[in-house]
Amino acid sequence: MSSESRIRCAALRERVMSAEAAAELIPAGINVGMSGFTGAGYPKAVPGALAERIRKLNAAGEPPFRISIWTGASTAPELDGVLAEVDGIEMRLPFQSDPICRDRINTGKMDYVDIHLSEVSQYAWSGFLGKMDLAVIEVAGIREDGSLIPSSSVGNNKTWIEQADKIILEVNSKQNAKLEGMHDVYYGTALPPNRKPIMITDPSDRIGEPYLACPMEKVIAVVETSAADRNTPFKAPDETSRKIAEHILNFFHREIELGRLPKELLPIQSGVGNIPNAVLEGLDAGPFKNLTAFTEVIQDGMLKMLKSGTLATASATAFSLSPEGIAEFDNNIDLYRDKIILRQQDISNHPELARRLGVIAMNGLIEADIYGNINSTHVMGTRMMNGIGGSGDFARNGYLSIFVSPSTAKDGAISAIVPMVSHVDHTEHDVKIVVTEQGLADLRGLSPRQRAHEIINNCAHPDFRPALMDYYERALHSGRGMHTPHLLEEALSWHVRYETQGQM
Amino acid sequence: MSSESRIRCAALRERVMSAEAAAELIPAGINVGMSGFTGAGYPKAVPGALAERIRKLNAAGEPPFRISIWTGASTAPELDGVLAEVDGIEMRLPFQSDPICRDRINTGKMDYVDIHLSEVSQYAWSGFLGKMDLAVIEVAGIREDGSLIPSSSVGNNKTWIEQADKIILEVNSKQNAKLEGMHDVYYGTALPPNRKPIMITDPSDRIGEPYLACPMEKVIAVVETSAADRNTPFKAPDETSRKIAEHILNFFHREIELGRLPKELLPIQSGVGNIPNAVLEGLDAGPFKNLTAFTEVIQDGMLKMLKSGTLATASATAFSLSPEGIAEFDNNIDLYRDKIILRQQDISNHPELARRLGVIAMNGLIEADIYGNINSTHVMGTRMMNGIGGSGDFARNGYLSIFVSPSTAKDGAISAIVPMVSHVDHTEHDVKIVVTEQGLADLRGLSPRQRAHEIINNCAHPDFRPALMDYYERALHSGRGMHTPHLLEEALSWHVRYETQGQM
Ligand SMILES: CC(C)(COP(=O)(O)OP(=O)(O)OC[C@H]1O[C@@H](n2cnc3c(N)ncnc32)[C@H](O)[C@@H]1OP(=O)(O)O)[C@@H](O)C(=O)NCCC(=O)NCCS
Ligand SMILES: CC(C)(COP(=O)(O)OP(=O)(O)OC[C@H]1O[C@@H](n2cnc3c(N)ncnc32)[C@H](O)[C@@H]1OP(=O)(O)O)[C@@H](O)C(=O)NCCC(=O)NCCS
Repeated sequence: MSSESRIRCAALRERVMSAEAAAELIPAGINVGMSGFTGAGYPKAVPGALAERIRKLNAAGEPPFRISIWTGASTAPELDGVLAEVDGIEMRLPFQSDPICRDRINTGKMDYVDIHLSEVSQYAWSGFLGKMDLAVIEVAGIREDGSLIPSSSVGNNKTWIEQADKIILEVNSKQNAKLEGMHDVYYGTALPPNRKPIMITDPSDRIGEPYLACPMEKVIAVVETSAADRNTPFKAPDETSRKIAEHILNFFHREIELGRLPKELLPIQSGVGNIPNAVLEGLDAGPFKNLTAFTEVIQDGMLKMLKSGTLATASATAFSLSPEGIAEFDNNIDLYRDKIILRQQDISNHPELARRLGVIAMNGLIEADIYGNINSTHVMGTRMMNGIGGSGDFARNGYLSIFVSPSTAKDGAISAIVPMVSHVDHTEHDVKIVVTEQGLADLRGLSPRQRAHEIINNCAHPDFRPALMDYYERALHSGRGMHTPHLLEEALSWHVRYETQGQM
Repeated sequence: MSSESRIRCAALRERVMSAEAAAELIPAGINVGMSGFTGAGYPKAVPGALAERIRKLNAAGEPPFRISIWTGASTAPELDGVLAEVDGIEMRLPFQSDPICRDRINTGKMDYVDIHLSEVSQYAWSGFLGKMDLAVIEVAGIREDGSLIPSSSVGNNKTWIEQADKIILEVNSKQNAKLEGMHDVYYGTALPPNRKPIMITDPSDRIGEPYLACPMEKVIAVVETSAADRNTPFKAPDETSRKIAEHILNFFHREIELGRLPKELLPIQSGVGNIPNAVLEGLDAGPFKNLTAFTEVIQDGMLKMLKSGTLATASATAFSLSPEGIAEFDNNIDLYRDKIILRQQDISNHPELARRLGVIAMNGLIEADIYGNINSTHVMGTRMMNGIGGSGDFARNGYLSIFVSPSTAKDGAISAIVPMVSHVDHTEHDVKIVVTEQGLADLRGLSPRQRAHEIINNCAHPDFRPALMDYYERALHSGRGMHTPHLLEEALSWHVRYETQGQM
C-alpha cells in the first residue's frame, strides 16, 4: 500500500507535515491524550520531535516545558522514555512501565496517577481530570470520509478524539493494512444517568464499528510514519514459570472435575509476561478446545492457541507481541482476522462485562501477604513499578482471580510472601487464588487464619516458611485481635531488613 | 390479618410446628443459610431455640454443636448473639455486627469470612463454599401456591432457597402485610457463561416478581412468629455529623455548578449510621427534588426524603429503621409502597448496575491514610469490627466514592487519619473523596504526594496535622521511593503507640 493510499481523505492529506512541524503545534502546560497500550499503537514520531524541541529549550535556559500525558496504558521509549528524559512530563496517567519514567516518578520529579484502566475514559468524560487540549493518535490509515482505521491498539483513542480540542494523527504504514475491520469501536457509551446495558454476552460479540469517527476540523496535523511497535523479545518459559503454569492447569482440571468450571473454562484474562505466556503454552498443550479470551492484550501465546484451535476467539484492546509474534501475525493475518476483536479499553475492561462473562483473571504480583492481600505496584511500599493497570478491573469483578509470582525475587534475597504487604492493590476480598512455583493457595471461603496456613505452606519458599509461621504464631498469641493476627511493630520489618541488610 | 391467613398454603400449614421442634431438625456441622440483612427480616425464633438446645448439650458435656451460618448481612442478638454465646457458630459469613459474635471472632473462637455482598450468591452457586444443607428464612406470608411473600429484607434468600436441601420458614405476622408487592425478585441470574445483561437502567425499574418461589417439598418446618425487627433507635445528628454532611452538600452543589453532576445528582448509596442519616437530612433540607437511591438499606432519612418528594424512588435490599421509622412506615405504607423496591442483594449491589447507574457511594471508615487508602473493617489492624459489607461493590464500581468519618475516635486519642492504614479495604485506586468534620479531600486525578497534602490539610484533626506532615516530609526525604513516601519502620507506629500508651 503506498503512503498516499493510507491517507485516503483528500482534505486531511493537505494537513500532512513533518513530525517536527507537528510538535511545534503543542503548547507547554497542556493535557495531551496519546494513543498506545502495552507498547502497541503509540505515536512513533511526534513525541520524539517534541522531546527534541524541549531539549533545545532546556539547553537555551528557557522556562520548563512540560505537558501531562494520558494514554491507554504503557507505551515505549519513543514516547515515555524520550519525554521523561527531557523532563517534559508533568503528570502521567494511567499506566507506564518505562525505566526513565519510573525513575522520575520515584525521585519525585513527575506525578503519576494510577487509575483502573476501565475507569480512565469515565474520568476524562466526567471532567475529573480537567480539559484535554490535544490528542496525538497513531492510526493504520485514514478513510475517504476522514474516519480512522485504528492501529494495533485501541485503548482510549475513541475518548481522546472526542475529548480533545485538537488532534494530531500519525499514520503508520508499518501497521498491517489488514488490521482494517478487526476493531470494534462502540459508540453506545454515555455518562450516567444515560447509560444503557452493553449487549455483549460472548467475547466474540461485535457491537460497534470498525472505525474511529473523527471530526475533521479538529485535525491540525497528519504525520506519516513507518516504524514497528515496541515488540519485546519472547523468552521461552523458564522452570519457575512452567511450574506455576502446571499448578494452574492442575487447578483448572480439578475445578472442571468438581463441576465448578465448564470444560471450555471461562473467558481468560491474562497479564503480560513470562508466567502468563507459560500458562497459555500449558493450556495449548492440554486437552482444551474452543476456549475464549476476554483480556487486555494479545500475547504470542494467544496466537499459538488461536492457530491450534485451543482458543476460538480473543477479545482485547491491544497486541503485545514479540518480533516473531508480529511476523507470525503478519504472515497469517487472514487466519487471525476473524478470531481477534480489538475494543476500546473501557469495553475490554468493563466491570459489567468482566462480571457477566465470568472472566478468569490471571495477573502478576510483587508481593502477597500471609492473609492474601496483594501488592502489585510498589517495591518496598514506596517505589512505583508500573501501576495497577487492568488487574483491578478483572480481579474484582471476574469469576476467579489468580495472582502469580515466583516465591522469591532478587536471587532469593526477597520473599514474595511477607507478613504484611507494604502496599495494597488487591485486598483480601478480591484475591481467590495465589500461585508460586511452590504451589497454589485456594483462598475461597477461608478466614484470614485459614488463609495464612494455606499461603505459608503452599506458596512461600521453604527458606522463608519457618519465619513466616513464627510471625503468624507470635501474632496469634500476642494478645491482639485474632481475626487477622499481626505484630504491628514487626509487620513491615522484613522490608526494612531488606533495605538495610540487602536480605529479608 | 389472622395467623392462618399468613399461611395460605394448606400443605405448608400442616408443617407448622414450634421453634423448638424445628430447631431439633438442624443437625450439627452443617452449613445453614439464614435470612436477615442489617437487622431486618432475620428469623426470630428458630435460632434462639437452637441456641437453647446447644446450651443444654454443652451443659450435658456433649461434643460441641456448631454450624456455619451464611446470611445476607448483619442480623441481631436473637440470631448472631444467641448462637455465638453458646459457641454454636463454626464459621460466619458475609457480614456481622454483633458484639458477642465480634468478640468470638477476635478471640479466635470463630472463623469469619468477609465477602463483598454482591458476590455471596455467586460464591454459593458456584460451589466455592461447599454445600448449603439447610436454610431458615423469615417471610411475611405464604401464598396458596406455596410461593413466599418476602419480609423486610430480601438479601440472599432467593439463593438460599434454591441452594438448600431443606428449608425452615418463619412466618412473622409482625411484618406489615402490605409488604406484599414491594419486592422485585429477579429469576434471570445464571452462572457464566450463561449470564445475560440485567436490564435495569433506572433505580425504579422492576425486572422480577414480587414473590420468592419455593419448592414445597424442601420445606421441613413452618414456624409462626410475631416479633419486631431489631430497630436501632434513631439518634439526632450530632455536630460532627452535621459538619460532615455540610461538606458533602457543598461538594454536591459545586459539582452541579461545574456540570459534573446533574441537578438530580445520581443514584445515592448510603451506609447506615449517624453520618449518612445527617447527609440525608441535609439533602432533604436543600433544593433537591426527584433524587433516587440505589442502595442496600432504607434508613429513616430516606423515608423522610420520599415523603417530602426529595427522593422519587429508593431501591434497596432491606430496611434499617428505628422504632419511630417503622411506625412511620407502617402508618403511611400506601405512600411508600410504590416508591420503594426491595431486591435480592446480588442485584441491589451488582457491579454492572452500580457502574451503569453511576452510583454515588457514601460509606463509613475506621481510618484513612495520607495517601487515601481506607480501612473500614479492622481496629488496629487485627480486630474485626463488622466487615466490608457492600462498600466495595459500590466504591469500586460507582461514579463517586465518598468515605466519611469523624477525624478522631476515642475522645481524641485516635486519629482517623494515619500515616499508613493498618488494613486496607479500599485501595487508593477506589477512593475519590474523603470527608471528616474538618473538611473534604477531593482525590480525583491526584498523585499520592498531592493526595497527602489534600488529606492532611483538609481532613486530619489539627491536633494531628503537624505530626502527619512531619511524617510525610521525613518520608519524602528519606532516600526511599518518592512516589508514595513512607518510613516503613515508623509507618504503623501510631497504632503501636495507641496500643501501648492509649494515645496516638
Ligand atoms: C507485578 C508485576 C510488576 C510483575 O511483573 P513480572 O514481569 O511478571 O514479574 P518479575 O518477577 O519479572 O518482576 C519484575 C521486577 O520486579 C522485581 N520484583 C518482583 N518481586 C519483587 C519484590 N517482592 N520486591 C522487590 N522487587 C520485586 C523483580 O526482581 C523484577 O525486577 P527486575 O526487572 O529489576 O529484575 C507486573 O505483573 C505488573 O506490573 N502488574 C500490575 C499490572 C497488571 O497486573 N496488569 C495486568 C493487566 S495487563
Ligand atoms: C467503618 C464503620 C465501622 C464506621 O462505623 P460508624 O458507626 O459510622 O462510626 P463510628 O464513628 O460510630 O465508629 C464505630 C466504632 O468504631 C470506633 N472507631 C472508629 N474509628 C476508629 C479507629 N480509627 N480506631 C479505633 N476505633 C475506631 C469508634 O470509636 C466506635 O467504637 P464504639 O462503638 O466502641 O464507640 C462502619 O461504617 C462499617 O462497618 N463500615 C464497613 C461496612 C460498610 O461500609 N457498609 C456500607 C454498606 S451498608
